[in-house]
Amino acid sequence: MIYFRSDYSQGAHPKVLAALANTNFEHTDGYGMDPHCAKAADMIRELIGVDDCAVHMMIGGTPCNVTLIAAALRPYESVVAVRTGHAYTHETGAVEATGHRVTVLDGENGKLTPALIDRAFEEYEDEHTPLPRLAYISQPTEIGTLYSKAELGALSAKCAEREMILYVDGARLGAALTAEENDLSIRELAQLCDAFYIGGTKNGALFGEALVIRNKAIDDHFRFMIKRQCGMLAKGRLIGVQFEALLDGGEAGVYFEMAAHANRLAKALRDGLSAMGVAFYSPSQTNQVFPILPRDVVEELERDVFFYRWAPERAGMIPIRLVTAWGTTDTDVTAFLDRVRAILQEKVR
Amino acid sequence: MIYFRSDYSQGAHPKVLAALANTNFEHTDGYGMDPHCAKAADMIRELIGVDDCAVHMMIGGTPCNVTLIAAALRPYESVVAVRTGHAYTHETGAVEATGHRVTVLDGENGKLTPALIDRAFEEYEDEHTPLPRLAYISQPTEIGTLYSKAELGALSAKCAEREMILYVDGARLGAALTAEENDLSIRELAQLCDAFYIGGTKNGALFGEALVIRNKAIDDHFRFMIKRQCGMLAKGRLIGVQFEALLDGGEAGVYFEMAAHANRLAKALRDGLSAMGVAFYSPSQTNQVFPILPRDVVEELERDVFFYRWAPERAGMIPIRLVTAWGTTDTDVTAFLDRVRAILQEKVR
Amino acid sequence: MIYFRSDYSQGAHPKVLAALANTNFEHTDGYGMDPHCAKAADMIRELIGVDDCAVHMMIGGTPCNVTLIAAALRPYESVVAVRTGHAYTHETGAVEATGHRVTVLDGENGKLTPALIDRAFEEYEDEHTPLPRLAYISQPTEIGTLYSKAELGALSAKCAEREMILYVDGARLGAALTAEENDLSIRELAQLCDAFYIGGTKNGALFGEALVIRNKAIDDHFRFMIKRQCGMLAKGRLIGVQFEALLDGGEAGVYFEMAAHANRLAKALRDGLSAMGVAFYSPSQTNQVFPILPRDVVEELERDVFFYRWAPERAGMIPIRLVTAWGTTDTDVTAFLDRVRAILQEKVR
Amino acid sequence: MIYFRSDYSQGAHPKVLAALANTNFEHTDGYGMDPHCAKAADMIRELIGVDDCAVHMMIGGTPCNVTLIAAALRPYESVVAVRTGHAYTHETGAVEATGHRVTVLDGENGKLTPALIDRAFEEYEDEHTPLPRLAYISQPTEIGTLYSKAELGALSAKCAEREMILYVDGARLGAALTAEENDLSIRELAQLCDAFYIGGTKNGALFGEALVIRNKAIDDHFRFMIKRQCGMLAKGRLIGVQFEALLDGGEAGVYFEMAAHANRLAKALRDGLSAMGVAFYSPSQTNQVFPILPRDVVEELERDVFFYRWAPERAGMIPIRLVTAWGTTDTDVTAFLDRVRAILQEKVR
Repeated sequence: MIYFRSDYSQGAHPKVLAALANTNFEHTDGYGMDPHCAKAADMIRELIGVDDCAVHMMIGGTPCNVTLIAAALRPYESVVAVRTGHAYTHETGAVEATGHRVTVLDGENGKLTPALIDRAFEEYEDEHTPLPRLAYISQPTEIGTLYSKAELGALSAKCAEREMILYVDGARLGAALTAEENDLSIRELAQLCDAFYIGGTKNGALFGEALVIRNKAIDDHFRFMIKRQCGMLAKGRLIGVQFEALLDGGEAGVYFEMAAHANRLAKALRDGLSAMGVAFYSPSQTNQVFPILPRDVVEELERDVFFYRWAPERAGMIPIRLVTAWGTTDTDVTAFLDRVRAILQEKVR
Repeated sequence: MIYFRSDYSQGAHPKVLAALANTNFEHTDGYGMDPHCAKAADMIRELIGVDDCAVHMMIGGTPCNVTLIAAALRPYESVVAVRTGHAYTHETGAVEATGHRVTVLDGENGKLTPALIDRAFEEYEDEHTPLPRLAYISQPTEIGTLYSKAELGALSAKCAEREMILYVDGARLGAALTAEENDLSIRELAQLCDAFYIGGTKNGALFGEALVIRNKAIDDHFRFMIKRQCGMLAKGRLIGVQFEALLDGGEAGVYFEMAAHANRLAKALRDGLSAMGVAFYSPSQTNQVFPILPRDVVEELERDVFFYRWAPERAGMIPIRLVTAWGTTDTDVTAFLDRVRAILQEKVR
Repeated sequence: MIYFRSDYSQGAHPKVLAALANTNFEHTDGYGMDPHCAKAADMIRELIGVDDCAVHMMIGGTPCNVTLIAAALRPYESVVAVRTGHAYTHETGAVEATGHRVTVLDGENGKLTPALIDRAFEEYEDEHTPLPRLAYISQPTEIGTLYSKAELGALSAKCAEREMILYVDGARLGAALTAEENDLSIRELAQLCDAFYIGGTKNGALFGEALVIRNKAIDDHFRFMIKRQCGMLAKGRLIGVQFEALLDGGEAGVYFEMAAHANRLAKALRDGLSAMGVAFYSPSQTNQVFPILPRDVVEELERDVFFYRWAPERAGMIPIRLVTAWGTTDTDVTAFLDRVRAILQEKVR
Repeated sequence: MIYFRSDYSQGAHPKVLAALANTNFEHTDGYGMDPHCAKAADMIRELIGVDDCAVHMMIGGTPCNVTLIAAALRPYESVVAVRTGHAYTHETGAVEATGHRVTVLDGENGKLTPALIDRAFEEYEDEHTPLPRLAYISQPTEIGTLYSKAELGALSAKCAEREMILYVDGARLGAALTAEENDLSIRELAQLCDAFYIGGTKNGALFGEALVIRNKAIDDHFRFMIKRQCGMLAKGRLIGVQFEALLDGGEAGVYFEMAAHANRLAKALRDGLSAMGVAFYSPSQTNQVFPILPRDVVEELERDVFFYRWAPERAGMIPIRLVTAWGTTDTDVTAFLDRVRAILQEKVR
């Protein structure tokens, strides 16, 4: 069986697991008030080159998004996002559950642009309409594409002009930072937004994300918000311990190594499929690959490969999603490409 | 000064005001538990030909929409509406404030269609996405168009197929029922939806709408919901008294007479403007008129006519909105058309 | 029939009704953006001696309470109130519906005290508990008692010490201001709190309350909050027009006259009942009277007097509530006292 | 250093950690849709003797409480709890954040009783008050006491009479089930309530609780609610794997063994302190101990023992809380008792 369904299908990288085992019998205070969370936060501050930001160890991506948004916005303010954004598509209305609209617009290659921000303001008039106040984006996007330094800079400037908060969902931030075509360092990213998170779950942690908040107004009483939104882990140190392990060695550490590995194998998938003439649903630049395949090929592949159908079938063709991770092997990639090649050859025979 | 800015710019029709004065010194119980509300509800049941539905006297349109939706949906369920729908465009996220997403789609002439319902379900997958559960429409639509009997029937059938609730915002229902091109009676409307309201505010009441709920599951404990959503008026009878006056005489009564009057004058505006070669932003069939005029004409008109600019300027042309009401006079219409004609003639001289 | 069930059982004072009729055919902008609301707000600013406060015309008491609280608090903050407070007892959890706890404590004669504020903070620890942030009180209280100038001053000082907002529900503020024993002027009240409202519904208006906000942080974008909480009336001027009429003449005007009238008749009820040896559930000082009567007397009275049983029966005795209003007559009071006297005499014969 | 501050200060029991390591490289589907969660659920169904209940693997106690309550209640319904209940005291208003009131009453030894349920209904009248609908209790209570079989039976009967849901927070359920004085089996508990959870976090898991829902109406679309309330873990299997390890061997397994161990050491603390004449704040019967000590003794102990001050100082005496866990040793207990004895002896010298 070959597994390309997600980058959270296995447990943790062995170094992460070892760190949990090594610290298992320590007694510490709960709820993230322990030395490991403090240390991990310091490591992150150094990594991003910001001394005085808040870093909160969070249990998951949806808790990051929802807690940040609920803390940042006044009741009548809204979020602006593209229709493919995770906070819109895959969080069961958790943002709206806190009372805020997510204004969605059709993005370009999964990205929000300054022009789309302006478009959102066309819906805004006065006290009869919600006030757009927070731009939600992901780096990389939900369909694997990247904001360039210029693109993020322009978006950041537009947000400043519109008095909006810019928040970056970094569920797969490792994949962005280590992508071949990436020109945006984590230090630059940190400077261009109000808050972002460094995703652990989808890059080798058991679970956990590190939420960085540079904007002090948003961070006010933030721990109250974490608790109120049900996101405070009793043994909070578990997240701190994992990030210590992940980020040990900085950009030479296992976090970056795993992400680069996943990117390399995704590229191998893309290159292999392209060579067979396969087209793609999204020009993904990271660890997700979205080939569009004939229905019968998809059905045949589903017999021994795990993946998701990504979008509705059109004219007999189905976009699927393949995801690589730290645990994916070269053998998985080769076996998959061989399988596709064989099926395609069988078809044309 | 000519006033076409809204149909709620004056007080109430004299018969409504007289009814309030005539009952002013009666003592009754509060919160809608009085004989006037009961009588008005019975009049409405007879008007719509439904014996056993609930009728609640509500203080306004947004309270109707929000209370109905909050009562009808479980937390993870969402509303489907067109982007021009009032509950999306002009209620400051009041629906989302109750924790529910409004999934918006671009409508056709302001209308939701069975195909758009299907499109909303393309965003729905499983427990990671909100479940579309209530279709919100207005009759007439926010831009004055009408659902035909066939269109509403098709939408109702699609809702049944999708196990969705169909709710009709009737802020200007009088205008729909008395429109020349309307083929949908209030009795038919009542049968095709789960709930709708008969708007008073925009048709000659001081304020107040009558919310009709045929679906008994939605009506369960509904008065708790009205109070919780801040919509219960202490002197609730004021709404009952007004609807008694408005509906006295049934379809021959003042409610229908006022709406027909407003429609007639709107048609006169449309005909007059058409004759001058003016194009329209929406093929409105009721008491709203949306001419598209050159910017300088709009600016000139703004000197002595009250109206709203409706949509952003494109290529020097601005869509404006003119609304007629029970208090609009033939003189207002003639004066306005003369004014436009004069400005246009001045331009081409 | 004698009616003591509430002070909102009749329509409006004739002067209020006349004002609505006199302005009925004016065209104005909607949603409170009209000259009448502006004028009424100015009259209130003058009455309370505060030049630069916000005054919003609101449709009812619950909308005042809920909108103010939702605007004033961050999500993790809570309200402190006594168990008899209206926002706790009679608003169906509308405050909690906006996500905020109401921490309730047993009051003394219906009043919140500095000691009770301290008690509320005993429940507060850190990010695991809501932060008490707004003290909700009513003047007069729900059971008719009054905060003296000294009591309100002490509470205000305690709120300042605890960095809390002090908000006064003035549903029956007229009754407080005109009570014989009152030593707190509206100017003093305005200085001692962050926000309060002047109730119209329970003192001669058809409906409507004037919400005064001195604390500018709370007023920020407040009209967005009114709309989002479903409290914005299309024909907003109706409230402005009524307050113009109510407050015309200032403290010599009809608002104060009606309240004084109701207080006088309530005192007559209290004196009359006291003379018969009746005890009271609450030492009310305003237009509510809470006699405790034997069950059979209550049942006998219920045959031709309207009132509420107020608290559960204990040892055969039932506290009831009698409310007087602008429309109550001396004859009503005399007739009621005669009736009670007759029943009591019958009993002891 | 001796650590009695909490039962979540260390990582996981070695068997739990080993199970995570052993399954680390498996690929499974995410979000709890994996064989380990399914297996753990089956083990729990067998343990409690209920074939057809739902079992959800949850990330923490607050997520259990909040998601269950939000799923179970309609918007106008409220929770009834004692003032010491965890959902009231230590969850930062997370229940209210979903729009529901928690009606709090002073319990007896931390317990809710049928009489208190009746008291809660004294606040309920009609549509102007929230409707009490769910009774929230903990077994053991927040202060370590136990509901006997008779007590829970009576509460369950009262809930049935009042048409209320009975929900049991089992954060420390292991401690209850293995307490010397307990007469309520988990099978009996399961029959007496609508839903409860088996706590992992406070009894040897890294994190995770197993929520059991017998009432099918509450379980409807429950996974949507988990996701919407931010409680769905991507690598959901982590919780399943842990419960497989904890419950392996059933009542002879490590879950019960750890809890019994903690209870035994707590009893040793209680007996030792009692022998020194120390009084207790709560008659705890489980792994929490609440001695009341003179302030100077507390301050002295704080130099090398970790614990919480539990309640405000009264007359120089401070109630503290000591908690034992699976990792607490006999040596810890002996050392602590020796330390207290020494300080007390020093005082009286």
